[in-house]
Amino acid sequence: MARKKNAFYAQSGGVTAVINASACGVIETARKHSDVIGKVYAGRNGIIGALTEELIDTSKESDAAIAALRSTPSGAFGSCRFKLKSLEANKREYARLIEVFKAHNIGYFFYNGGGDSADTCYKVSQLSEAMGYPIQAIHVPKTVDNDLPITDCCPGFGSVAKYIAVSTLEASYDVRSMAKTSTKIFVVEVMGRHAGWIAAAGGLVADQGIPVVILFPEIEFNQKKFLAAVDAKVKEHGYCTIVVSEGCHYPDGKFLAEQGTRDAFGHAQLGGAAPVVANMIKDALGHKFHWAVADYLQRAARHIASKTDVKQAYELGRKAVELAVKGHNSVMPTIVRLSDIPYKYKLGYAELKDVANVEKFMPRDFISKDGYGITAKCRNYLTGLIQGEDYPKYAGGLPVYVTMKNATVAKKLPEFKL
Amino acid sequence: MARKKNAFYAQSGGVTAVINASACGVIETARKHSDVIGKVYAGRNGIIGALTEELIDTSKESDAAIAALRSTPSGAFGSCRFKLKSLEANKREYARLIEVFKAHNIGYFFYNGGGDSADTCYKVSQLSEAMGYPIQAIHVPKTVDNDLPITDCCPGFGSVAKYIAVSTLEASYDVRSMAKTSTKIFVVEVMGRHAGWIAAAGGLVADQGIPVVILFPEIEFNQKKFLAAVDAKVKEHGYCTIVVSEGCHYPDGKFLAEQGTRDAFGHAQLGGAAPVVANMIKDALGHKFHWAVADYLQRAARHIASKTDVKQAYELGRKAVELAVKGHNSVMPTIVRLSDIPYKYKLGYAELKDVANVEKFMPRDFISKDGYGITAKCRNYLTGLIQGEDYPKYAGGLPVYVTMKNATVAKKLPEFKL
Repeated sequence: MARKKNAFYAQSGGVTAVINASACGVIETARKHSDVIGKVYAGRNGIIGALTEELIDTSKESDAAIAALRSTPSGAFGSCRFKLKSLEANKREYARLIEVFKAHNIGYFFYNGGGDSADTCYKVSQLSEAMGYPIQAIHVPKTVDNDLPITDCCPGFGSVAKYIAVSTLEASYDVRSMAKTSTKIFVVEVMGRHAGWIAAAGGLVADQGIPVVILFPEIEFNQKKFLAAVDAKVKEHGYCTIVVSEGCHYPDGKFLAEQGTRDAFGHAQLGGAAPVVANMIKDALGHKFHWAVADYLQRAARHIASKTDVKQAYELGRKAVELAVKGHNSVMPTIVRLSDIPYKYKLGYAELKDVANVEKFMPRDFISKDGYGITAKCRNYLTGLIQGEDYPKYAGGLPVYVTMKNATVAKKLPEFKL
Repeated sequence: MARKKNAFYAQSGGVTAVINASACGVIETARKHSDVIGKVYAGRNGIIGALTEELIDTSKESDAAIAALRSTPSGAFGSCRFKLKSLEANKREYARLIEVFKAHNIGYFFYNGGGDSADTCYKVSQLSEAMGYPIQAIHVPKTVDNDLPITDCCPGFGSVAKYIAVSTLEASYDVRSMAKTSTKIFVVEVMGRHAGWIAAAGGLVADQGIPVVILFPEIEFNQKKFLAAVDAKVKEHGYCTIVVSEGCHYPDGKFLAEQGTRDAFGHAQLGGAAPVVANMIKDALGHKFHWAVADYLQRAARHIASKTDVKQAYELGRKAVELAVKGHNSVMPTIVRLSDIPYKYKLGYAELKDVANVEKFMPRDFISKDGYGITAKCRNYLTGLIQGEDYPKYAGGLPVYVTMKNATVAKKLPEFKL
């Protein structure tokens, strides 16, 4: 019994359609290892919940509620954008974490996030050595940006890729219908500030004969070349779909969305690479356009989640607990690809020191030579990740998503100012 | 055999996720009535195809391809934005229509569209009397705007309502997760130039405890009152979702989002109310925001179509042919609601003279007293229309949508300049 410790689990950064599936994997697996893992406390609003001692007692949630996490988008316990500074820069916060962990007998730290979070998790994993508190910190990968290194992919990405591929296909069919007398240009803006993985997913529709031009953040924007590419597609097909990454930028680093177009009232239009691109085409080529900005709709779209992605999200949560039970610290479970088509993979793990602060960009050979499309290599990479549909249950026409009770345990410590 | 006539079918105006299901209903039913209906010719790009004599021979399409129309979004034969002027103003176009109908032995005219198209169809239905050419013109209702009179609802609307309700729910869960340290405001812009039916669908999430403020085109925009409503929601819930109709406007009629371009019908092309609203909140209340513009994604979203909507779209196509076979002219098949919950309906029909140029707005008692939400009456109306899911088949992670051969018959007439 002396060995038995409680676990802390937190969701971090931008949430996804499947981060709760990882939570489900962590909690269900921890419940199976009740010999070594006591309660799983979830941080209310991520790591902030650990600092403020707002610990959600997940044992108060029924098995059915925990199982329902698998098909519920968003972060059920709340997430946050909060990055711990280095141990040297902010020892106070780390001391507080240890105080809270001690007060609640916490020996396992599961952190579910992207690149910044991997860095935080890595710092926590060093607390045993640096401050003498025994803790096992395991990072559970999550990010729609798909930019964590080592792992084949990141949970959340496969579903947003599927959403963007499906939506781009559907909207392209629409504009194809309208092009004769009306809209010839459809622009959809997608997430991905630094890496074009999500934009690449829009390129999958090219296989179905859709004329599509992708604007990646990895390729410096060249207006003249871009307009020529669009013009050629419209001349050949009568219409063109453009998928623009929010991170698309000029050679000087300025984002397209920063261009400062104005609406009919003279207000600057903030954000929105899509309207910038659409108006650029209208001005140069005169085509009528429509544009969409998917924003949160894309990363929250649990209704069209990839079955593969949901499965991996769950499995990585499960694997994180299994690694902890085996005594690991400072690691992240990973997806190891075994084959493209059919997509096969196994689970592995990586050392957090190799993960923290490393960003994985699209390889250049995933982007076509002209910079506006994807290669067969990229298609083979993406196809596996969007396989299968994992539909939620519906009632009254709407998906049934769970909301947790989120009851916190009694505080034992004085208040902590963030 | 003398009685046997060919049919002309055309898709008109903005396409939807289910207009092809109506096409499927028309063509499959016509095939069953081969004793009185010969071939079904579809206009390439709508009514323009009739004027230019570009008649797609749907008999060249297999039964399987026609059946696949039921689960394919967009307009499979091409649509157009092209409004016939009155008989007095442009007799030349009507004379041409008759010439083409005569040349191809066309006695049935099925026009699949919204309000403007109902007017065109009505004019065509008068050709027997006005110009001595025997034609039966039947309008098949279609519009995501849901603004046709008499019919309980319009095919296309139920699916876009479902898409908006589902997406608003998902994005609201997302912002709820993030609100502690990041995004507190999520704004989604939806279609609906004059009528707030689509925006109303976003209001369905209020039942699930989501704080949502709807901006209807029916309610004049009042910035101060709106900001107070949002402020109250954020103070109570920590976040707020705003659903803004593209048609939302100031008391002087100016749209929040007017881009300045106009379509072929002279309607202002809208887009971009969401960033206007989001920045307004940021300026006044200081909250971090995200915004999305769903645009074509919403009306093309066959992947999350309402089963009820798909069924009705098909049935109205079928009913149109049945009405024609029974000798009707100048009518539109309709949905007649029998009960709200459970939603029950039967098919009926209306005279086109009562349909053309009548726009159905949201009843005031569908909108809450404060103007920012929906009433129980509205909820009861909407709920039936989003019932059920009608998932397309998938292959390789993407929906399987059909593309027609669209082979046209040989022209018999001299060219016609549009």
